[in-house]
Amino acid sequence: MAICNSVTRLLGIEHPIVLAPMDLVAHARLALAVSQAGGFGFLGAGYGDAAWLERELANLSQANAQLHQPFGVGFITWSLLRQPHLLDLALAANPRAILLSFGDPEPFVRRIKDAGALLVCQVQDVGMAIDVVAKGADIIVAQGGEAGGHGVSQGSFTLVPAVVDAIGDEVPVLLAGGAADGRGLAAAIMLGAQGIVMGTRFYASVEAAGHEAAKQRIVVASGDETLRSVVFDISRNNVWPHPFTGRCLANRHTQRWLGRELELMRREDVIAEFAGACQTGNFDIAPVIAGEAVALVRDIRSANEIVWRTIAEAERLLAGGSHWVTKENSAAA
Amino acid sequence: MAICNSVTRLLGIEHPIVLAPMDLVAHARLALAVSQAGGFGFLGAGYGDAAWLERELANLSQANAQLHQPFGVGFITWSLLRQPHLLDLALAANPRAILLSFGDPEPFVRRIKDAGALLVCQVQDVGMAIDVVAKGADIIVAQGGEAGGHGVSQGSFTLVPAVVDAIGDEVPVLLAGGAADGRGLAAAIMLGAQGIVMGTRFYASVEAAGHEAAKQRIVVASGDETLRSVVFDISRNNVWPHPFTGRCLANRHTQRWLGRELELMRREDVIAEFAGACQTGNFDIAPVIAGEAVALVRDIRSANEIVWRTIAEAERLLAGGSHWVTKENSAAA
Repeated sequence: MAICNSVTRLLGIEHPIVLAPMDLVAHARLALAVSQAGGFGFLGAGYGDAAWLERELANLSQANAQLHQPFGVGFITWSLLRQPHLLDLALAANPRAILLSFGDPEPFVRRIKDAGALLVCQVQDVGMAIDVVAKGADIIVAQGGEAGGHGVSQGSFTLVPAVVDAIGDEVPVLLAGGAADGRGLAAAIMLGAQGIVMGTRFYASVEAAGHEAAKQRIVVASGDETLRSVVFDISRNNVWPHPFTGRCLANRHTQRWLGRELELMRREDVIAEFAGACQTGNFDIAPVIAGEAVALVRDIRSANEIVWRTIAEAERLLAGGSHWVTKENSAAA
Repeated sequence: MAICNSVTRLLGIEHPIVLAPMDLVAHARLALAVSQAGGFGFLGAGYGDAAWLERELANLSQANAQLHQPFGVGFITWSLLRQPHLLDLALAANPRAILLSFGDPEPFVRRIKDAGALLVCQVQDVGMAIDVVAKGADIIVAQGGEAGGHGVSQGSFTLVPAVVDAIGDEVPVLLAGGAADGRGLAAAIMLGAQGIVMGTRFYASVEAAGHEAAKQRIVVASGDETLRSVVFDISRNNVWPHPFTGRCLANRHTQRWLGRELELMRREDVIAEFAGACQTGNFDIAPVIAGEAVALVRDIRSANEIVWRTIAEAERLLAGGSHWVTKENSAAA
């Protein structure tokens, strides 16, 4: 058995499980591991460090030379606008898809389409979904507030069906934010999505870039130990445009500064301390950028095993869906 | 067909669809209409207005004399502690279940059990779930941050499976927060719940108590037009214990006071104006207490039709779950 639908056909993949383009964490090794497992890997080009992107595209191309796995590159749209040449760098590597999130995709649509790549647009509300469909999005990622990193607050559970209702069957929708296992994939499909984007679950993978200590914090955190705020953006002098805020694990730093953002903004000593902590991996101060799905992540696994377990569980749940329904008293009869 | 499981058997109902005990909105007429439709209606006894509770229990008993529908009464636990005799009032009406939320159920467990009623406990994190199971809860409601009214922030999409994992098969779990249709019910079941609690969807019903203007605002609101804050609690001099905050529709009042709570607390003129607005139903100032499910509510229907449509859609989705899975390439094979 397999879950085949418009997203698996469009992306040319076996399973509708997509790696979130987590800034720096989703490097070539992780993206390729997810694609090799039958999912779809995005490189996390984030704020557009050109040297990082060149290196990871080269790593990916080299490792992928014999494999020919599909992959994509994800950008922060408002940041890409400041260095639009990074899109050319990405497109030259022949990605199957470009994911744009957090801003207007319009300036980039034609170049992406002309290069033969699919345009995947991540949105956080219904209005954005309608807008990006009109501008040519091939796949929509509806990102609920559960997601790690930047986003808005409305949860996946209502956002996904609302987006599906708004854009109809025109463009397939993926759920991002909160999914970490086969239950999440099966539930996403019931809500009208064609699959899921997972970040936090893949962060806690063998292949993910990032400190081992950060992965361990994800494994032990419970679902009420994350928060959405502007604390970590202020701490690194990188405040995002409205309405985006960032979710990370709560730690000593967020406990200290949440609600005192205006003071934090003027505390150069704290901002310097924060930069140091990010370098050394002191996660009492540096943020572990993860979502509410930490509630469901209890181990570090290979990307292959994560994909395999997720799809097997979802298939079992979906194939058994009719067992929940008995033949008496049907309201649908 | 029907969705039958441990919750429908425990509550003696046909469909695992439960009316949230919305303070004052869930009166006898609405509770009975939900139960008559095959779901389970809770009276919303909220802060414990004894006159309201006596009247609605009398209304319910009278209307239910020939029907013998099961019903329940829901309390705010920390408020019930201040006037515990209200529980006797409720138990004297022979409810099938008592729902306790927002506080330690311990002081009430024995009286509820001795009266032969089921103890339903609403929780907002895994720790609370483990605690109330140890204290004798018969059913757990895992309430995600999407819910209208009071709650905490973790979304249903991760909270429900995390709670199910923590308490195992000991006690069945219902999802509250975000569900407004059959997609939500089917997704809840995929996440490991046995059914759903719906508030906002039933607020926008013909039978619900509450202003017609409030129901209309729910119908037109989009999913990003609610917020979770302490603004409306401060505005009515009724600040809840940590960690509970309240979700309502954004309006002129929340736009004005969000982020200025310390000033609001000392503005007697504004607090008086707010009280007046609640009396007259001026919902530019008074709160419409509704959740993110407003994204999915586009009409006012009878409670019977809401139950019927929800169950029919969920049955169709669950029974067709295997259609998502093709027989090639099974990861589960």
